[in-house]
Amino acid sequence: MASQNCYDVTQWPVGDPHEDVGAVINSIIADIKRRQDDPDRGDGGKPGAVIHIPPGDFRLRTQVVIDISFLRITGAGHGFTSSSIRFNTSREELAKWHELWPGGSRVLVDLPPAHGADGAAFLVAREGDPRISSVEFEGFCIDGLHFTGTEADNPENSYRNGKTGIHVASANDSFRIVGMGLVYLEHGVTVDDADALSIDNNFIAECGNCVELRGRGQASRIANNLIGAGYDGYSIFAENYGGILVTGNNVFPRGASSLYFSGVARSSVTANRFHSFYPGMLVLSDGCAENLVSSNHFFRDREPWEPMVAFDNGRDDLFGLVHIDGVNNSVIGNHLSLSIDPGHLKPAGERPVMIHVAGGTGNYIATNHVVATTEAAGTTDAPASACFATQVGALLASGTGTPLEVTTVRVGEGAASNTVLDSGTAAQVVLDRSANAFRPTPGVEAG
Amino acid sequence: MASQNCYDVTQWPVGDPHEDVGAVINSIIADIKRRQDDPDRGDGGKPGAVIHIPPGDFRLRTQVVIDISFLRITGAGHGFTSSSIRFNTSREELAKWHELWPGGSRVLVDLPPAHGADGAAFLVAREGDPRISSVEFEGFCIDGLHFTGTEADNPENSYRNGKTGIHVASANDSFRIVGMGLVYLEHGVTVDDADALSIDNNFIAECGNCVELRGRGQASRIANNLIGAGYDGYSIFAENYGGILVTGNNVFPRGASSLYFSGVARSSVTANRFHSFYPGMLVLSDGCAENLVSSNHFFRDREPWEPMVAFDNGRDDLFGLVHIDGVNNSVIGNHLSLSIDPGHLKPAGERPVMIHVAGGTGNYIATNHVVATTEAAGTTDAPASACFATQVGALLASGTGTPLEVTTVRVGEGAASNTVLDSGTAAQVVLDRSANAFRPTPGVEAG
Amino acid sequence: MASQNCYDVTQWPVGDPHEDVGAVINSIIADIKRRQDDPDRGDGGKPGAVIHIPPGDFRLRTQVVIDISFLRITGAGHGFTSSSIRFNTSREELAKWHELWPGGSRVLVDLPPAHGADGAAFLVAREGDPRISSVEFEGFCIDGLHFTGTEADNPENSYRNGKTGIHVASANDSFRIVGMGLVYLEHGVTVDDADALSIDNNFIAECGNCVELRGRGQASRIANNLIGAGYDGYSIFAENYGGILVTGNNVFPRGASSLYFSGVARSSVTANRFHSFYPGMLVLSDGCAENLVSSNHFFRDREPWEPMVAFDNGRDDLFGLVHIDGVNNSVIGNHLSLSIDPGHLKPAGERPVMIHVAGGTGNYIATNHVVATTEAAGTTDAPASACFATQVGALLASGTGTPLEVTTVRVGEGAASNTVLDSGTAAQVVLDRSANAFRPTPGVEAG
Repeated sequence: MASQNCYDVTQWPVGDPHEDVGAVINSIIADIKRRQDDPDRGDGGKPGAVIHIPPGDFRLRTQVVIDISFLRITGAGHGFTSSSIRFNTSREELAKWHELWPGGSRVLVDLPPAHGADGAAFLVAREGDPRISSVEFEGFCIDGLHFTGTEADNPENSYRNGKTGIHVASANDSFRIVGMGLVYLEHGVTVDDADALSIDNNFIAECGNCVELRGRGQASRIANNLIGAGYDGYSIFAENYGGILVTGNNVFPRGASSLYFSGVARSSVTANRFHSFYPGMLVLSDGCAENLVSSNHFFRDREPWEPMVAFDNGRDDLFGLVHIDGVNNSVIGNHLSLSIDPGHLKPAGERPVMIHVAGGTGNYIATNHVVATTEAAGTTDAPASACFATQVGALLASGTGTPLEVTTVRVGEGAASNTVLDSGTAAQVVLDRSANAFRPTPGVEAG
Repeated sequence: MASQNCYDVTQWPVGDPHEDVGAVINSIIADIKRRQDDPDRGDGGKPGAVIHIPPGDFRLRTQVVIDISFLRITGAGHGFTSSSIRFNTSREELAKWHELWPGGSRVLVDLPPAHGADGAAFLVAREGDPRISSVEFEGFCIDGLHFTGTEADNPENSYRNGKTGIHVASANDSFRIVGMGLVYLEHGVTVDDADALSIDNNFIAECGNCVELRGRGQASRIANNLIGAGYDGYSIFAENYGGILVTGNNVFPRGASSLYFSGVARSSVTANRFHSFYPGMLVLSDGCAENLVSSNHFFRDREPWEPMVAFDNGRDDLFGLVHIDGVNNSVIGNHLSLSIDPGHLKPAGERPVMIHVAGGTGNYIATNHVVATTEAAGTTDAPASACFATQVGALLASGTGTPLEVTTVRVGEGAASNTVLDSGTAAQVVLDRSANAFRPTPGVEAG
Repeated sequence: MASQNCYDVTQWPVGDPHEDVGAVINSIIADIKRRQDDPDRGDGGKPGAVIHIPPGDFRLRTQVVIDISFLRITGAGHGFTSSSIRFNTSREELAKWHELWPGGSRVLVDLPPAHGADGAAFLVAREGDPRISSVEFEGFCIDGLHFTGTEADNPENSYRNGKTGIHVASANDSFRIVGMGLVYLEHGVTVDDADALSIDNNFIAECGNCVELRGRGQASRIANNLIGAGYDGYSIFAENYGGILVTGNNVFPRGASSLYFSGVARSSVTANRFHSFYPGMLVLSDGCAENLVSSNHFFRDREPWEPMVAFDNGRDDLFGLVHIDGVNNSVIGNHLSLSIDPGHLKPAGERPVMIHVAGGTGNYIATNHVVATTEAAGTTDAPASACFATQVGALLASGTGTPLEVTTVRVGEGAASNTVLDSGTAAQVVLDRSANAFRPTPGVEAG
C-alpha cells in the first residue's frame, strides 16, 4: 500500500494551493498529526512526512505553522531571479522582458506586514520536549514580492516589508535548509536556539537580512551558500552561539556586514569569499572569543550601480573591514582587497583601516595580505540591465590602480596582549608596541 | 511507457516494508538484475535503478545486499532525533514527550548483534570487474534503535550493538552518501577500498564510530557533515588512504578522536570545526606522511553532561590535542582552544600538550594559535532535558577564564628536522633546538 | 488538480526517450512555453517546470535547447563508471565484466562531432532580458560514449570527440549544476557570462575539460566536486571572472592544469586537494590579480598507468607547480608535495620549481610547506584492472623517498616587490633580494 506520508500541495483535497498554499500546508500538517497519533508504536509512530511543492506560483495568505518533527517540505526549483534589477527597470523595457517574476516551486508571501515571527511565511514553533527535530526545507522558492519601506525613493529598494521566509522560534535540533531560494524578504531565515543546524547550498539574496542565528545555540553549519543582503541588514548574523562553522559561502553585497557575530565563541569562519560595499564586513563584537577567521577573501569597493549608490551602512573607513572587539580570536591567512577613490574615504584624508582590533586581548593576527588600490571616481549611468556588466567590470578593474596607503592593522588604545605578525609593515600597522607583540612583514632589504 | 527503474518500497508486491524492508529491497534488487540482464545492449543495458523509501517506520530484519552498480536508495527525511537524551530521561518525563523515536524515511535496524559486515543493515559487496560503481545512499535514516553494551550502567550509553548502517566491503568507485541520518549504530558508515567516494552533508551522530575508510583507497571526500561519535570510537577514521579531502565538517563530541589517520598520505584536513572532550582530537599515526592540517578550529573541554561524565578515551594530557607520528606533514593556521580546570589534568601538575610531534621528521608546524584557559570544576546536575542548555553554556563560557599554562608544541625526543614557527613562545614550546628549527611567536618587546 | 509542471521523459506522449531524449525534452520545453505564455499573471506566470529522467539509457540525437528560466532537469543517478579503464581492457577480460557502460539516469550523447556549442548535448541560450535565470541540472549522467581523436594509439585515450555536456551560451544568473555525473566528453560544463553560478557536488571525470567559465562573470562557486580532466585540457578553467570561490574540490589527474585562471581577479582557491601528473597544476596568468590561493594540498607525481604514460602537457619542471604571472595575489598556507625520479625531470639536471612567480608585483607568498622526494623510476605493467591498486600504491609510497632538491619558490627576473616568507630556505628560494622581500624558513640553529 502506497505511503500516506507523501503529500503534494496540488493534490490535496482541501483548499487551493495557488490561492493559499499556507492553508493547504496547515491542513496537511493537521492530517499528519491526526494519523500519527502514537509516539511509541512499534518503536516508532511519528516519522513525519514530506510535502512536495511542484513548480508553480503558490500564493501564501496564511502563515504555515510547523510543530512536528521530521517534516520535510520540498520543491523542484529555487527559482531566483533578480527582482532588484526588475524594479529598477522602466515599464518600456519591461514590456520586452521574457519573464518578470521569480519562479520554480514558488511561494508568494502575501501576508500583511508584521514584526518578527508574525511576518514569517513558515513559522516553526513547539514548546516542550523533545526539541523539535529534523525539519527540512529543500529546493523551493520563498518570494516576498515587494519591498515597501518609505525611506528610499523607490520603496522596492528599501529591503523592508516585515516578511520573513523561515522563522524557527523554538529550540530545535538537526534542522536542514538546503537548496532554497529566498528573495525580497526583510528576513530570509531566522533560527532561534539552533543545535546542529545545516544551512547549505541556498541562494538567499536581495533580502534585507539573509541568515540570522538568534537566541543561544551551537554546533551548526552555514556553508556553500550564495548570499547577499541589504544595506541595512546582515548577510550572516549570529548571537550567543558556540561552535559554528561558516565556510564555503560566497557573500556578495550589499549587506551592512557580510558577517556579524555578537557574543559568539569558539566558532570558525573560513574559506569564504566576502564582497562588500562598506566597512565593517566582518565584525566580532560583544565579547566574541576564541573564534578563527582564516583563508577568507575580502574585497571592499564602492557601490557601482546607480539605484543603490545613495545607501550605505553608516560606518566610516576607520572602522575596519574586519572589526574585532573580543578576546583570543585568530585572524590568519586572509586576503583583504580594498579598491576605492580616496575622495570617497570617510573621514576625508585619513588612512582607511583594514583589520581593526578595537578592543580586547589575546587576539592573534598573522599572515594576512592587504592589497589597497585607488579606483576612478563616479558610478555609471548604465541602465539597470547593465547591472551585471557594471558589477563584473568593477570586480575585474584591478592591476592598474595606484597603491592606496592604508592602515593594514590597527590595535586600539585599550587593547593589549595582542599579536600581529606579517600583516603589514611598521608604517602600515598602528599599535602600542609596549603592550602588543608585533613583527612587521619584511620589506625589501636595503642596499 | 513509464520507467520500470523507479521503485518504492511501499508499492512493491513482495513483502511488507514495515515488517522487513530489507527483504523488500533485496527482492527489488533481484528484479533489477532479472530485467537488466545484458551488459551491452545499445551501448547500455544495466543503468541501475532508484528505490525510494517514503517517510515512515520500516523495520529491517534482513540485511540488504547490494551488488549492482548505479543503484540509488533515496528517502525523504534524515530523521535524526537525539536518542541519547531520550534514553537518559525518566519515564515520567518521557510520558510528556511529543515523540520518542527518530523519524523521516526511517530504517529500524533489527538485526541480531554481529561483528563487522554481518551486522550491517546495508552491505555492498561484489567481487570481479569492474569495481562496483556509483551506488548512492541519499536522504534517509538508519537507526540502530538501542545500544546494548554491558560496560556502562545504562547500556544505552555504551555505543555498542554490533550494528553498522552502511558497510561497503568491496573495492568501489564513485559512491555517494549524501543527506543521510545515522543514529545509534556501533558503526555508521564503513567503506573499504574506496575510490572517489563522496560522503557529504550527512548527519551521523550518537554512533560508536561515524565514518571509517578502511582497506586501501584514494581520492575521496568527507565534507559538510555533522558528526559525533562515542568515547570508544572514531568520528572520522581512515587507514592507508591517499589523497582524501576532509573539509567543512562540524565534528562534535564525544569520539575518542575527532579524526584518526593511520598510514594516510598526501591528504588534507582543512576548514573543519572539531570539538572534543578528550586529548587526541586529531591523530596522524603509523607513518602518516605529507598531509595538510590547516585552517581548522579545535576546542577541547570536559564532558559537561552528567550521564557521560564517567567516560573518556584513556589518553592523558601529554598526548596532545593534535598528535603526530609521521613525516613531512603540515600543520598550518589552526586555532586550538583548551578550557579545563587544572584539577582535571592528567597527569596532575603537568602542562597539557596541544600539538605533539611524538615522532617523525620534516613536519612543518606554523602559525597556529593556542588559547588555554581554566574553567570551574564540576558538572551540572541538570536533567537530561537541559543537555542542550548545558552544552551551549560550556561553549560560550569563554573570555573570563584565567589563562592556563600549556605546552603549545612539543617535539618528542626522537623527532628531528621538524620546523616550528610562530606557534608558541620559547617558554611554551618544547623541542630540541639542535635538531629542529624553531622560531618563537614574538612577544611584547621589553622596554 | 495535479501540477502540469512536472514532466517525466518516459511519460511524454511525443517521441521515444530511449531513441532521442533530446527531441523529447525539446518537445516538453515547447509545451511549457505554450502553457506559460503570460509573464505577469497574478504576480507570476512563468514558474518553469521540472523534467525528470529516471534511471535508464536515453540516447540523445537532438541537441536540447533551453531558453526558459527556472527549468530543472533532474535524474536519479549520476551513473559514473570508468570508461577509461574499460576502453583499455582486453575483450577477453571484458567478457567477464558485470557491466560495461555508465548508468544511472543516463543521457548517451549521440551527436555528430562538432565545435563548441554545436556539440553540446544541452545548450542554454537566450538573448534579451532578463538574463536567463535559475536553470538547474541535477543528479543525472551525461555520457559522451567514446573519444575519437586520432593523436593517440587508442582513440579512446584521446579525450577528443567534439562533445560538450552542458553549454550555457548566454549571460545567466543563479544557475545550479549539482550532483551530476559527466564522463567521456571533450568538454564537461562550459558556462559563458555566469553570475552567481553554483557547480557543486558533481562528478566530472574522464572528460577532456571538466569545468570552464568563459566570457566574463562573477560571484560564482565551484565547490565540493570530484574532477579529473585529460592531459590536453583543463580540470577547472576561468577567464575574466571576478569574485569566484573554488573550494572543497578533490581534483585528480590528468588535466593539463588542475586550475587555470586567465585574467581572473579577486577570487579565492582554498581548501582544495589537487593531484596532477604534470607541472603547471595551478596557473594564474594574463593579469590575474588579488586572488587568494590558500590551504590547498598539491601533489605532483608521474603517471603510473601504462595506457597514459605517453602523454603530458608539454610543460617542463621549471614552469612551477604553481605558476603566477599577475599582481597582488596571495599564496598562503599551502602544502606542496612532489615525488619524482630525478631521471624524469625536464630539463635534465635542473632543480624543479614548485612556486613560480614568473612575472608581476605585489604577490605575497607565505607559510607554504614544500616536500620533495624521489621515487623509483618505471611504471607498472599491471593490467588495466589494476589501475586502482597502482594509483593507490603511488599515493601511499611516501616516507621512504630520498629528499629531492628543489626550488621551492622562484621569483622571475622581471618580477619585483613580491614578498616570500617561510616558504623555503635561502638555498631553496631564487629571487632578487634587492627587489623582493624575503624571509627564509628558519633552519636548525648551528651549534
